Amino acid sequence: MQPLSLLAFLSDFGLEDPYVGIVKGVLLGINPALQIVDLTHKIPRQDVAAGAFALGSAYRNFPSGTTFLAVVDPGVGSERIGLLVITGPYAFIAPDNGLLTLILRQAPSPSCYRLAEERYFRHPVSATFHARDVFAPVAAHLSLGVEPSAIGPAHSNPVYLPWPEPRTTADGLLGEVIHVDRFGNLITNVDDTCIRKMPPGRPRTVEIAGNCCSLLRTYADAPRHALLGLIGSSGFLEVAVNRGSAAILLGVGTGEHLLVR
Amino acid sequence: MQPLSLLAFLSDFGLEDPYVGIVKGVLLGINPALQIVDLTHKIPRQDVAAGAFALGSAYRNFPSGTTFLAVVDPGVGSERIGLLVITGPYAFIAPDNGLLTLILRQAPSPSCYRLAEERYFRHPVSATFHARDVFAPVAAHLSLGVEPSAIGPAHSNPVYLPWPEPRTTADGLLGEVIHVDRFGNLITNVDDTCIRKMPPGRPRTVEIAGNCCSLLRTYADAPRHALLGLIGSSGFLEVAVNRGSAAILLGVGTGEHLLVR
Amino acid sequence: MQPLSLLAFLSDFGLEDPYVGIVKGVLLGINPALQIVDLTHKIPRQDVAAGAFALGSAYRNFPSGTTFLAVVDPGVGSERIGLLVITGPYAFIAPDNGLLTLILRQAPSPSCYRLAEERYFRHPVSATFHARDVFAPVAAHLSLGVEPSAIGPAHSNPVYLPWPEPRTTADGLLGEVIHVDRFGNLITNVDDTCIRKMPPGRPRTVEIAGNCCSLLRTYADAPRHALLGLIGSSGFLEVAVNRGSAAILLGVGTGEHLLVR
Repeated sequence: MQPLSLLAFLSDFGLEDPYVGIVKGVLLGINPALQIVDLTHKIPRQDVAAGAFALGSAYRNFPSGTTFLAVVDPGVGSERIGLLVITGPYAFIAPDNGLLTLILRQAPSPSCYRLAEERYFRHPVSATFHARDVFAPVAAHLSLGVEPSAIGPAHSNPVYLPWPEPRTTADGLLGEVIHVDRFGNLITNVDDTCIRKMPPGRPRTVEIAGNCCSLLRTYADAPRHALLGLIGSSGFLEVAVNRGSAAILLGVGTGEHLLVR
Repeated sequence: MQPLSLLAFLSDFGLEDPYVGIVKGVLLGINPALQIVDLTHKIPRQDVAAGAFALGSAYRNFPSGTTFLAVVDPGVGSERIGLLVITGPYAFIAPDNGLLTLILRQAPSPSCYRLAEERYFRHPVSATFHARDVFAPVAAHLSLGVEPSAIGPAHSNPVYLPWPEPRTTADGLLGEVIHVDRFGNLITNVDDTCIRKMPPGRPRTVEIAGNCCSLLRTYADAPRHALLGLIGSSGFLEVAVNRGSAAILLGVGTGEHLLVR
Repeated sequence: MQPLSLLAFLSDFGLEDPYVGIVKGVLLGINPALQIVDLTHKIPRQDVAAGAFALGSAYRNFPSGTTFLAVVDPGVGSERIGLLVITGPYAFIAPDNGLLTLILRQAPSPSCYRLAEERYFRHPVSATFHARDVFAPVAAHLSLGVEPSAIGPAHSNPVYLPWPEPRTTADGLLGEVIHVDRFGNLITNVDDTCIRKMPPGRPRTVEIAGNCCSLLRTYADAPRHALLGLIGSSGFLEVAVNRGSAAILLGVGTGEHLLVR
């Protein structure tokens, strides 16, 4: 028995159907010692940008050597290719449709490969379930020690999604909400580095949807049910409500603009 | 420490309550080296037919030696018996209420046993949670190498659910929708063998809910937002929409009839 | 490789965001041989009492040596402390906000420690995600054999939630519904010991929401779609409907009173 190795799995498959379980069956059929962790399978259907954000905000918390299998794949069966990206201590396997955008943006010098070597696929390869027949088998073989370069040729032009960058304006830093989490926290594209680069002038405030609130350290620093801004656990500015939901209080969601002063 | 062995678990317990976790606690208390994979726990409550379909469409993707624990059990505590079915390289444990219908239909010569040997149960056996007290303990003992015949006597008359068979008519093959998945794909009882047996006359078309579409290879072979038929990853005919939901487009669900020409 | 050790994880994080996966990544980064079981992550947001009930009704089904990580933490980042409770063969790690109320009530002589030793934390410790930065790392170190007393000083005053006790009245035993499960079963604060202590006078009946039903052994002992009372698998009185939902039939939920005669 080889040592356990870790694979983190993200998809838009949901938990109603047995698709997630099927992929795990294939993974464990190839590498029975794989330790599989679900990142989430409730990415909204075919929402590649939401998957890219979830993966990008989570992967750094995993130990060196983790393989990430990410499948949000509206183009399954089309000509889109499959991608292996090696960056630092991590490997990522995904369709080449932008799902790895944040990984690629944050990686100093990623190595990209096209999933081409069919002996690492499950046969026959279906036209509709590449997670089972292509991505999972390749990921399992990688976890067994197959060299990345044996998976396929180098690939130089992976797909990037357009990524909304915060903009510096005369009034302050202009950002937008890119994700609303279960707690109703509004997570934005403004990260702590952007804020640290702003000209001094604390205390900082955040304006959103006609409201203004202070940038604090944590939820409990605001009165109960009051709005606040804070740097969340992934390093992005969040707008939140202490023991409440900012999304409900403000009635806004993804795409809403905000201004940090 | 013994080698990892694999158990796949399906139920209608949902994920809100700790029932799934409790069953896993019992399994791992008996066999700490068990590797447990969730197939799904979101089978609609007490919907034995939906559970039978999910299990029947998923199990072949698991490696030899996998034990399946399947519990959708509206008759818990009644006189219904517990069943162990051995077929090829797999073992299935479930209440004898039809949940194993597809397994039994597809198995060349299944061996069936009644769960009778109480020394493999958890005691005291509750009247309402046999997953915890009967099915899981037996499954865990099996995974440790207990012989099937030690679990109880052979059982000759397992319960079958009626299964809708596609019918050949003068107009073509008449089938029906048996499952709608998360993506809105309408999965039917028509499998690829049925279609291959049809008289030649391609290209095939599918008529459903007043619409007609072509049988194609994959989603991306249809224009965006257009309806198509295809053979899905489990070998059944699906009616789908490229980057959309056939269930929403057509406004139909389980039980809807369709005609393959 | 050390032997597998078992950790059960409960939270209100939901499954839409990658928070649960992130915590597991941290756990496995410290102890790669940890076997992690999800108890549930769908505790209603910030509902400490619901989390306390789920944990309290589940933990006894786990094998000796299990570590429980429980996080429902509306006060994250405030002055509330983190708690380690050792009771019998189990260890519990949670914020000190009442989440361990049932554990502490049922434990003969629990040992409580404050999570203070920062070398077992993940650094930098965020102000908003102590599950990742405090509770999980401490739990993982414990599972590696760190002594409880090395985690921090003894703590003598853990927080208890008020717990509704059933009351003996002239009419009978007065209880209330404390949880509604996925099947619509109404789980009450009346446990089997309370009922066994009642003066003899069977058959027992349960009155709730203007209805009266018998206390039976299992669902199948009532006619289909009929109301019944029974002692559920956790030892609490439940009001249920055979092959139906008591919550829907009666239109009631948590907090509803009932009378056992």
